[in-house]
Parts: sequence; structure tokens; C-alpha cells
Amino acid sequence: MRALHLATSPRLSTVTAPEPRSGEALVRVSRSGICATDVHLSRGYMGFRGVLGHEFVGVVTAVAEEGQGAWVGRRVVGEINLGCGQCARCHGALPRHCATRTVLGILGKDGCHAEYVTLPVANLHPVPDAVDDARAVFTEPLAAAFEVAEQVHLEPGSRALVLGDGKLGLLVARVLVLAGVDVTVVGRHARKLALAERFGARASPEAEAVPGDADLVVEATGSERGLDRALGLVRPRGTVVLKSTFHGATTLPLAPVVIHEVTLVGSRCGPFAPALRALAAGLVDPAPLVDQTVALSEAPRALEEAQRPGALKVLLDPSA
Amino acid sequence: MRALHLATSPRLSTVTAPEPRSGEALVRVSRSGICATDVHLSRGYMGFRGVLGHEFVGVVTAVAEEGQGAWVGRRVVGEINLGCGQCARCHGALPRHCATRTVLGILGKDGCHAEYVTLPVANLHPVPDAVDDARAVFTEPLAAAFEVAEQVHLEPGSRALVLGDGKLGLLVARVLVLAGVDVTVVGRHARKLALAERFGARASPEAEAVPGDADLVVEATGSERGLDRALGLVRPRGTVVLKSTFHGATTLPLAPVVIHEVTLVGSRCGPFAPALRALAAGLVDPAPLVDQTVALSEAPRALEEAQRPGALKVLLDPSA
Repeated sequence: MRALHLATSPRLSTVTAPEPRSGEALVRVSRSGICATDVHLSRGYMGFRGVLGHEFVGVVTAVAEEGQGAWVGRRVVGEINLGCGQCARCHGALPRHCATRTVLGILGKDGCHAEYVTLPVANLHPVPDAVDDARAVFTEPLAAAFEVAEQVHLEPGSRALVLGDGKLGLLVARVLVLAGVDVTVVGRHARKLALAERFGARASPEAEAVPGDADLVVEATGSERGLDRALGLVRPRGTVVLKSTFHGATTLPLAPVVIHEVTLVGSRCGPFAPALRALAAGLVDPAPLVDQTVALSEAPRALEEAQRPGALKVLLDPSA
Repeated sequence: MRALHLATSPRLSTVTAPEPRSGEALVRVSRSGICATDVHLSRGYMGFRGVLGHEFVGVVTAVAEEGQGAWVGRRVVGEINLGCGQCARCHGALPRHCATRTVLGILGKDGCHAEYVTLPVANLHPVPDAVDDARAVFTEPLAAAFEVAEQVHLEPGSRALVLGDGKLGLLVARVLVLAGVDVTVVGRHARKLALAERFGARASPEAEAVPGDADLVVEATGSERGLDRALGLVRPRGTVVLKSTFHGATTLPLAPVVIHEVTLVGSRCGPFAPALRALAAGLVDPAPLVDQTVALSEAPRALEEAQRPGALKVLLDPSA
């Protein structure tokens, strides 16, 4: 099958189609989404080698276990962390944090920028009919946005800043708006800030003074300087959620964290179920975030497009 | 009056006794406690100049307002943050975080290593008779320990590590033990670890392997490397409380904070009322933490003693 495969650089390759292993399903990918993490991985982050991609929607074409045959033909999205299934974290509340997990298209497991992908059936979620492929493919990043609400009590009377008007920043802002929070998105792109205003957030161009003393600041800039800035904008006893990951070490003054008693929350993958519910109910419409849909056969170019300044979501269509 | 005054270096000086200003009380100090912060200040931290000291117990000898005369003669301890009393933080839930506050013996306000100190009456708490001076003087650091419980939900079924067997580490450990938490204190001093074991915590000498995957890690080492270590010992989705403050910037890898979704909580001053209740009920007995009580006239030597490796609390007695 064709796939966007990362060796020393990402290229479209013909690789052997995966076969579902015990407990797994084989999924024919309908759409996959290019994430900033794919770009970081293509530059060497995590040392990943293999098929890129962890955002997808597709149709189950086969399962390894006879008893799971009911999944065949279903349209699905899939959680990206594959725990060992044996350890205390997997049996408890932390399967996404299994110490020996693989992660779809990120760590030890071929991803979904391909014609086919395999995942344990336990990772799959059926997609409601009301959610088309171009929206369902946002389930994974929207779940990452809902993760903020899993971790932090979102008080409807509070005031939040989202630093960064990228795809994740906008999805997080929408989740905060849904919770009743007074949200301001701080960004550099008039087009993206206009989207934020359309779905109920305020917009603050970078050049303008950013309102400080926020109860909550979500750092989604993708820049190493984002956290230091967030710490300068949060009120004492407020919360900063860190969404950006970086290579290497960051240098920042920690005394203000202690003196102002700030809470810093690292935030990664989130729950799929509320993301699918929000998409099905039309509470989040990610369609305006799609810049273009590119044929899988042009995947390397699509990866380039996704890196253009100001770009939003680039989707891949494996049928083309 | 005599006072431990910091100019370029801390020395015992004769300074003018303070006079209570509007809303303030004049307190004759019975005991004051030397804190690690006093040592940091004496080395230039915060650029403080004036009378050192923020932990005390004393007796009110005068008040500025006639209507507050009932305070005269009362034995008191005092909260150390002096807010403006006008701003939203002072009127709301954040008076200890007033942006224009002064802080007793730390920021713009002469401290209590002296015969007399002034504080707003609003900052004072009467000391129950059951609590003698040598214990009451621990109200402020014990309040800082209770601050951890104000900020973090202490689940009785959880497992906590306290990094650092100093005064604050031991007080925090005791507060965690009272909440039912399974607490291990990690430290370098057999004598201090023995104290921890006496009050119900486990002890783990530095040289031994420290149990990892903790639900909660309280960083009270006073060392810049403590946070990095704490991040290596906390479980995914666990909490690290930062109690140490440092000059300048710290360099540390932030990707693990995001990947493991750790919550980092800066923690400073705490609530006096629960600290006084715990002292009065005998739930916390700080007496074993007192190394020696030194006459105020020998305050510079006492400050040296407080810096000796392995030292615990050194108290000053202004009557001698």
C-alpha cells in the first residue's frame, strides 16, 4: 500500500500493508489529518521511523478475532495510545500513560497517513452518522482540547487566554467557550482570529496589549517562549495549561511560579467520547479549519503545505 | 531597640523602635524563628534592606486605633503579607497576593528579629493558651505547610514523597500524615529522618533508591535540582508541589511535564487558622524541630548557626 513513510526524510513509499494482530482491526483510512507533531517528527523529534500520522477516520475491513466481527464495515476513529493491557496503569485510570505503550505514528507503531492502518479494537470508537469524514478526522485533536477540561475545573465565571491561534488553540478555545468561560485567543493571523470570533471567543492580535491577570492561560503557541509569556499573563493562584512539547531543555525563572502560586498543568491526549458527542451535536464544527484536502499520492507536498506560515489543517485522502 | 538589621550584611543594630501606624498594633516579640528565607535575604535575595524576620510570637503593647484597644495584652502571631486593602485581590480571595503588598521582613517592611514589630491588627491571630511560645512561633511555617492542603486535594489513599528533610519538609510531611496520606520523606540527615518516622512518615535516606511513581511529590529541598528530580519521581497525571524559591532561571526539560501530564503547583504562604488549631490540638508538635534558642543580642551568630549543615530551627529570644 502507499504510505507517508519517515526514514531520514518523509516520502511516499510503497510499504507492506499491515495485518491485524491479536485483538486488532484493519482499518481502510478515509481521511487523515496532518498535525504539527507530524512536522516535528519529520524533523527528528522522538526519533520516530515508520509511517507518520495519528489523526484519521476510516472503515474497518477486517478483525483478527472472530468474535469481533461486528466491527467490520463500521466507520471508526481510534485512540492513539496502545497500552500493554497488563500493568497497573492500564488496569487503572491511566491506560494512555502505560510506560511501555506504543503510540500511533509517534512511537513504535506505524501511523495512518496510509491506505490502511491497524489498531486494537479496544481503541476504536464508532463515528455517529451525523459526523462526516472531514469532521470526524478532528476527533483526536478535539479530544486533546477536551483534555484541558478533564484536568482543570473550568469555571464558567472565569477568564481565559489561549496563546496561539493554530488548530489546537482554536479547538481548545471552542471547548472553553462551550463551558461558559470568557475566552480571548491571542494570535498572529487575522484569518484565524476571525474564526475564533465567529465561534464566540474574543480575539487579540499579538501586536495589541494582551489582557493580563487571567484565571487560566492555555499555552498552545508551539513556541518555546510561550510558557514564559503565559506565566506573565496568569493571575496569582491561576492555572497555566501547557500544550506545546519541545525538544530539549527550557530555561525559565521558577521563583514567580512559587511566589504567585501558579499551577502549571501539562496536557496531552484526551477523551474521544466527549469529542465525538460534541461533533455529533454540532457544538464544534471543525470544517472551517480545513485548508485543503490533498491526495495521499501527494503527501510530501501536503506536509510542506502544512508547514506554511498561517496554514491550518491539511487533510490527506488515501483514495486519491 | 535592638534588631537583626540587614544592610550590606546582617548585624545587630540599635534601630528606632517602630510606631504603629493607622490600623496597626505594636507587638513586643517573645520569640522569633530564623527561616531559610532569612539566610537567602542576607545573601541578597529580593534586595531586601531592613530588619529581618517574619516568624514570631509576641504580646500586643499598643494599637493605633482606640477602638482596637482590646488587642492590648494579647499574645499573638501575625500573617506576613500586608495588602493595600483596596484592590480586587485584597477584597477577593487573594489578599496574600496583592500586587503592591509589603511582606514582613522580606519586602518593604521591617521584620520581627527585634524587640518590637508592627503589623496591621487585621494580620494578627490570638494564640490559644495551650500553645506555648516555642511552639506558637512555628505558626507561620506550619501555615505554609497547610498551604499544600489548600491547593491540592490530599487523597488519604495516595502516596506522597517529600523531597528534603528540613524544617519545612518535615512540617509538610506531618500535615500530609494527618490527612491520611502514605508519606515518605527523602533526606540526607539521619536525625531529621528519625523525626519524620516518629511522627508517622516513612524515611528514605538519599543514598537509597527512592520509591517512584508517587501521586504527589513535594519539593522542599531548597536546591535548584529538586524540581528535575521531583519530575522523575511523580507518576503520570500526578502532582509536584514546588516549595523552594531560587534566584534566576532554572533549566529543565518541559516535554516530560506535557507527555506525562504532570501538574506543577507553586506554593508559598498559607492559612494561619488551621495551623493554630493543629498546634492547640497537639496534632503538630514542632518542639523537636528546635535546635537552640539564642539571645537576640547574639543574633548574627544565631544566623550562622542556622546555616550549619543539618541545622533545624534556631529561635531568637529578644528578652535576652
